[in-house]
Amino acid sequence: MSTQFKVNPQPTFVDWSTGDLSGEGIEESVKTLGQLAGLFKDEAAWRSMDPVTEVYRVRFWRPVPEGTSGGLFWGATILQPGRVGDEYFMTHGHFHAIRDRAEYYATVKGTGAMLFMGEEEHTWSQTMKPGTVHYIPGKVAHRVVNTGHEPLVILASWHSDAGHDYASIRTKGFGKRMVVREGEPCLV
Amino acid sequence: MSTQFKVNPQPTFVDWSTGDLSGEGIEESVKTLGQLAGLFKDEAAWRSMDPVTEVYRVRFWRPVPEGTSGGLFWGATILQPGRVGDEYFMTHGHFHAIRDRAEYYATVKGTGAMLFMGEEEHTWSQTMKPGTVHYIPGKVAHRVVNTGHEPLVILASWHSDAGHDYASIRTKGFGKRMVVREGEPCLV
Repeated sequence: MSTQFKVNPQPTFVDWSTGDLSGEGIEESVKTLGQLAGLFKDEAAWRSMDPVTEVYRVRFWRPVPEGTSGGLFWGATILQPGRVGDEYFMTHGHFHAIRDRAEYYATVKGTGAMLFMGEEEHTWSQTMKPGTVHYIPGKVAHRVVNTGHEPLVILASWHSDAGHDYASIRTKGFGKRMVVREGEPCLV
Repeated sequence: MSTQFKVNPQPTFVDWSTGDLSGEGIEESVKTLGQLAGLFKDEAAWRSMDPVTEVYRVRFWRPVPEGTSGGLFWGATILQPGRVGDEYFMTHGHFHAIRDRAEYYATVKGTGAMLFMGEEEHTWSQTMKPGTVHYIPGKVAHRVVNTGHEPLVILASWHSDAGHDYASIRTKGFGKRMVVREGEPCLV
């Protein structure tokens, strides 16, 4: 009964130790290195790697249709450890199509960096470790970077009418990149 | 630097095993039995109990001011076990002032019931146990009931412009109550 489901979706389930989501209606999207052309600075290093290598997957729950005003979505992202040249594996990153929409990211497992970029390309970061909860204000692009040696697992909650603007990032990137310098992550 | 804080709030911290929140700017609100006059059906039982007994406390993080369009809040509720007569301890419950605003509740510890009530007083419930994630659609009042023997800890995420309408619940209550019947929770 789809009407019933819309009015009263059943609970889904999160494993607090792994971040894994399960339940009816969970969707999944996987991003491989081959799908992330142009994202990493060292294009020669990117070309030398296997394009089917998984960089991240997002599992998400949309209890109401995309674009619903006043609704919320819930998701889990698993970002693999790795580098392209000296640059850590990261998510594509996006602004929200409706610019003022905020979002929460909360780290379940792993270590990383949350990258923020304002509309004027000013870029800053916060350290991610299990338990950190990050508020992404409206009008701020956001990207996650895995600076550790195990998968980085985060939970997220965002507005169902926020939408995604990936094109701005594809065109101009972020103002800074997270790379390894003498074994440590460094924002350059 | 309050301007900096608004633009770039620092991460807060959640303990995934206890649900506890810590960090700069965490607020707390405590509700005692004495503050919940008229909420429970058995008024004689309520009067016989110590009014300073804690029923629940909410710890919450508002990185943007209440009423901000497009923003989100994050909170943790700790609901104690107990009963007033045959009725389990519960939160006050509310609609959102802006009626279409949804909310997520996610159970960290304990067992309970999530009560939902539509605007026509149709009332239903979902079982809460560690890991259940509950979507509260817009236009639906919501209340949490602790049906177990340990504190029920839940995390929540909601819109910063949702607001709270407690008055409708104070006046008319929910359509059903969660009571103990032969040792088991029962919605009557």
